Amino acid sequence: MSVLIVGSTALDSIKTPTAENPRLLGGSASYASVAASFFGPVNLVGVVGDDFPKRYIQLYKRHCIDLQGLQVLPGKTFHWSGEYEANMNNRRTLLTELGVFEKFNPALPDSYQATPFVLLANIAPGLQHHVLDQMRRPKFVAADTMDLWLKVALPDLLKLLKRLDAFVLNDSEAEQLTGEENVFTALKKIHRLGPKYVIIKKGSHGSVLSGPRGQFLCPAYPLRRVVDPTGAGDSFVGGMMGYLAAAKGPIDRNIRRAMVYGSVVASFCCEGFGVQRTTRVMRAQIEGRVRELERLTRF
Amino acid sequence: MSVLIVGSTALDSIKTPTAENPRLLGGSASYASVAASFFGPVNLVGVVGDDFPKRYIQLYKRHCIDLQGLQVLPGKTFHWSGEYEANMNNRRTLLTELGVFEKFNPALPDSYQATPFVLLANIAPGLQHHVLDQMRRPKFVAADTMDLWLKVALPDLLKLLKRLDAFVLNDSEAEQLTGEENVFTALKKIHRLGPKYVIIKKGSHGSVLSGPRGQFLCPAYPLRRVVDPTGAGDSFVGGMMGYLAAAKGPIDRNIRRAMVYGSVVASFCCEGFGVQRTTRVMRAQIEGRVRELERLTRF
Repeated sequence: MSVLIVGSTALDSIKTPTAENPRLLGGSASYASVAASFFGPVNLVGVVGDDFPKRYIQLYKRHCIDLQGLQVLPGKTFHWSGEYEANMNNRRTLLTELGVFEKFNPALPDSYQATPFVLLANIAPGLQHHVLDQMRRPKFVAADTMDLWLKVALPDLLKLLKRLDAFVLNDSEAEQLTGEENVFTALKKIHRLGPKYVIIKKGSHGSVLSGPRGQFLCPAYPLRRVVDPTGAGDSFVGGMMGYLAAAKGPIDRNIRRAMVYGSVVASFCCEGFGVQRTTRVMRAQIEGRVRELERLTRF
Repeated sequence: MSVLIVGSTALDSIKTPTAENPRLLGGSASYASVAASFFGPVNLVGVVGDDFPKRYIQLYKRHCIDLQGLQVLPGKTFHWSGEYEANMNNRRTLLTELGVFEKFNPALPDSYQATPFVLLANIAPGLQHHVLDQMRRPKFVAADTMDLWLKVALPDLLKLLKRLDAFVLNDSEAEQLTGEENVFTALKKIHRLGPKYVIIKKGSHGSVLSGPRGQFLCPAYPLRRVVDPTGAGDSFVGGMMGYLAAAKGPIDRNIRRAMVYGSVVASFCCEGFGVQRTTRVMRAQIEGRVRELERLTRF
């Protein structure tokens, strides 16, 4: 089955202590769509300016990502620029130019409205609502978010939580939302806000799922070297949704494996700038790392 | 088979934001011995002063810990006092009175010298050497350490690493020792210093083993509330060695499960002050949490 993915489509300029890469393909929807594309068809909803490089359109197409929902407006593409510290854990934003993103009004093509799996990747909760309003009875809806929306759009986000099957956020956002530093207490509190499945991402420490069949401690794939962690969280949730949409059987039975696949795609994402490493990955390499994670966690 | 455990035997006065507990039973060897005692016989090597409360001797005895190697010297027992911050991750030492510990010269009773499993719990590397010098061909030797010894006794510690089967340390100590923040790179570097098995502890994020059969990502048991994390690392390594000594078959095949048992005993340790919670645990409760960790990590 297909996944509809809405989120930001952007150009990222990323500095790390060892390198600088201007105008990479970025944005939550780009990372998530490339990640999901390994498992099945993706319908992308986003907006770019008329400066958006043709090579990135080609890149989406090579991944068989449907672009009917990608608006091209006159003006500049959303441009984010950031710098990482040596340990890759802390980053600071150098520049944010919203460009055409400011006017983004996601109107779904008719053909998208019955997509069974919906991923509301990180974007303003208002826009996430707007996309959901246009969907016809999706089978499974998941959303990601970021610290900014918890600060400036909390009422919208809280309303959104009641419309979701799954909510994905990182540990510091979970603390921000619940006031709880303990991940397992935070999970419990977030369930009360609506979602049946709650997933808290912990970066290199993996992620934790809480759902109707209990909790799952999902490992992160062990990486000896992180080149650029930008988009790892988006790749995780994109890979997870791609796997879920492609898998036969009930969500409940598949979601753990889906998280492991997401975790593996995220590990490839960290090994290169932007999506440079991810786009060169073969499905067999993903399967290889999933088997490795099985061996690494068995006891 | 038996485990010989050498380390500190102390009185701990622990302050947390919500409570204060003076003169609890503490010290690396106390925590590790209680943890190991769930699985089989323990020979304790340590020193206490003549102020050491009788009730703690009784406590050791209730756990069937052999005390022939526990010296009682005239003077004061080693006393440590510390305070935890609200998040339980940072603690600061308020007071350290070495007392009789300063004169500790571990002379092993004859009956201890052929103990097949040896745990050199956290104590000065010089004393760890001295104990090892008295052992007759032990089957398996593991050591723990702390940041202090990396600073003030590094040459002794490096010599010790060449005499060990397994070396256990936490993530910040691993970084201090190798200069590597990445856990997986640090593991590789520590192997080159001698030990066949290297285990890096990551607190609530679990631990990682590197050994001849590859790596193992050992989960931490999910706790909603930590009362006092003091001794969790000692309990982990004690539980692990206790399980290993009791298990049939090769170390290689048992060490993953041994770490999971250690992790579970450590989780109980965190749920009370000192060993207060651990000493009330039944073996069946340990088995229950091990099965839970199986369910929590399966995919």
